[in-house]
Amino acid sequence: MVLLNTSKSNRSYAILGTGALGGFYGARLQQSGTEVHFLLRSDYQHVRHHGLTIDSVQGDFKLPQVNAYASVEQMPPCDVVVIALKTTQNHLLPQLLPPLVGENSTVLVLQNGLGVEAEVAQIVGPEKVMGGLCFICSNKVGPGHIHHLDYGAIVLGQYSANYQPCSITQRMADIAEDFRQANIPIELTEDLFLARWQKLVWNIPFNGLSVVLDATTEEMMANPAVQSLAEQLMREVQIAAGACGRSLPDSYVQKMLDHTAKMKPYRTSMKIDYDEHRPLEIKAIFGNPLDSAQQAGAKIPQVEMLYQQLQFLDARNRSVGV
Amino acid sequence: MVLLNTSKSNRSYAILGTGALGGFYGARLQQSGTEVHFLLRSDYQHVRHHGLTIDSVQGDFKLPQVNAYASVEQMPPCDVVVIALKTTQNHLLPQLLPPLVGENSTVLVLQNGLGVEAEVAQIVGPEKVMGGLCFICSNKVGPGHIHHLDYGAIVLGQYSANYQPCSITQRMADIAEDFRQANIPIELTEDLFLARWQKLVWNIPFNGLSVVLDATTEEMMANPAVQSLAEQLMREVQIAAGACGRSLPDSYVQKMLDHTAKMKPYRTSMKIDYDEHRPLEIKAIFGNPLDSAQQAGAKIPQVEMLYQQLQFLDARNRSVGV
Repeated sequence: MVLLNTSKSNRSYAILGTGALGGFYGARLQQSGTEVHFLLRSDYQHVRHHGLTIDSVQGDFKLPQVNAYASVEQMPPCDVVVIALKTTQNHLLPQLLPPLVGENSTVLVLQNGLGVEAEVAQIVGPEKVMGGLCFICSNKVGPGHIHHLDYGAIVLGQYSANYQPCSITQRMADIAEDFRQANIPIELTEDLFLARWQKLVWNIPFNGLSVVLDATTEEMMANPAVQSLAEQLMREVQIAAGACGRSLPDSYVQKMLDHTAKMKPYRTSMKIDYDEHRPLEIKAIFGNPLDSAQQAGAKIPQVEMLYQQLQFLDARNRSVGV
Repeated sequence: MVLLNTSKSNRSYAILGTGALGGFYGARLQQSGTEVHFLLRSDYQHVRHHGLTIDSVQGDFKLPQVNAYASVEQMPPCDVVVIALKTTQNHLLPQLLPPLVGENSTVLVLQNGLGVEAEVAQIVGPEKVMGGLCFICSNKVGPGHIHHLDYGAIVLGQYSANYQPCSITQRMADIAEDFRQANIPIELTEDLFLARWQKLVWNIPFNGLSVVLDATTEEMMANPAVQSLAEQLMREVQIAAGACGRSLPDSYVQKMLDHTAKMKPYRTSMKIDYDEHRPLEIKAIFGNPLDSAQQAGAKIPQVEMLYQQLQFLDARNRSVGV
């Protein structure tokens, strides 16, 4: 049941990729009265007939009716086009984006890793592109069925050429307001590139090692050797960020380690992809940061090694299939 | 059937650890007419009654009767005491060696890794200790049953305090002659430490990655990312050896890579141990070389990372058991 809200957004949203991330955020937006259009692939028939089901730590809810589409050609252009696909699907963006993006649209990249906004900017122009970092634990557990386990906040920033910092715009504030109305905590940043490097401090060690070692965050943090290794990998990300002009304080690394030690045992998103024999997002999360570091003259041999190991495991894992 | 040989050795051999390595070399020595005494553990009853069976690329053979022992107290002191245990058993050496080692005995360490001779020297004195590097593919496939798949050569060197190079002695030549009579190719070296680093150039990348990536040598060499990683790890071993005063030419690294690419698909000894839930020889093969490198001021971050990953996998693998 959709309740009309007095402060209901007058912006329309397209969600590309109605999975753990896009399904959750899109459902929250629709629940708050916002107009949302969902692009689906394998779940299209199911969601068209049964809508979306969200099991959330903040309270379960259902949306029996949603605007579901199997192709972008049937969708209307939207004010905000949210990219919530896996980055391994980004080769589709040149086909997916143009029909949805109008003169005043914003494309919001809610993906992990580095460098995706630059790719999107080549399709729609840099001024239309924003990036969002999602701090959320959620899984898709069935067709149109999302399990939201914890967290949910977004850090939102405007993209500009070469990831220069840029001031906060009215448009960013408007979009943030839509998310807040939808009960999604959101922060605005003037430095999207910094925010991306900050998130990589966690994602690079724990997404990578969870696959290579077949382990949860809890198992990794319980082993002194892996704890040291995770810290070393974080320090290399810090070095890479520094070489790329973004300074991360030592205290940030320590904060991430302390935080991980206290987390509930968690199977990372990359580990879930691996277990499901889906392609891994290693180019965006490892390859692009490594390229950036190397172009800036920084050596990060342990991150490089983790990427090499993941390339092997990903290739074999895909060829095995399900 | 034991044939007496006119050039039969007048030295007696004790074999500590009658497995893939000790079982094969000891059987070859006995086959050539040498007096050999075998220490066994789980296979003792079987070998006492049925002897040893060797399936070898060079021709299968059986020794229906061997001198088998369940404890060193029953064994006679021997001229040459061969340590062919896994290094993970080396905490037993202070008990095992003294009953077997007489005034003129030699203790021959046929183990992988670095630093074991120094430990043995603390028990029996440095002048009694030699080290041997075994280039062999062999597995134990059943009680007293060894499968010798390929190769077999040994490089033998005298140990001296701090692994200083030292000239070739009559005693080394005598032992080498025993092995040659037994159809085991053997080379003598004046620099045991160099020989150990040379062997680590192969063992560190391929033993380590075979466990972490669950892969054969062939699978690893077929993947460009792992091929690069193996080469980088070899270069780090080269750097470590250099810092420890032993220069390995670049051509040696290339030779090892080319050699591995041409090898038959091979499951490394560390991978076999892992699959059998046996403790891994990671301290001797990774931990000790890493310590030596770090004490010499060399940084080898990728070898360190591989060691950290293996420590985690080894600990979990043991706790799972069989």
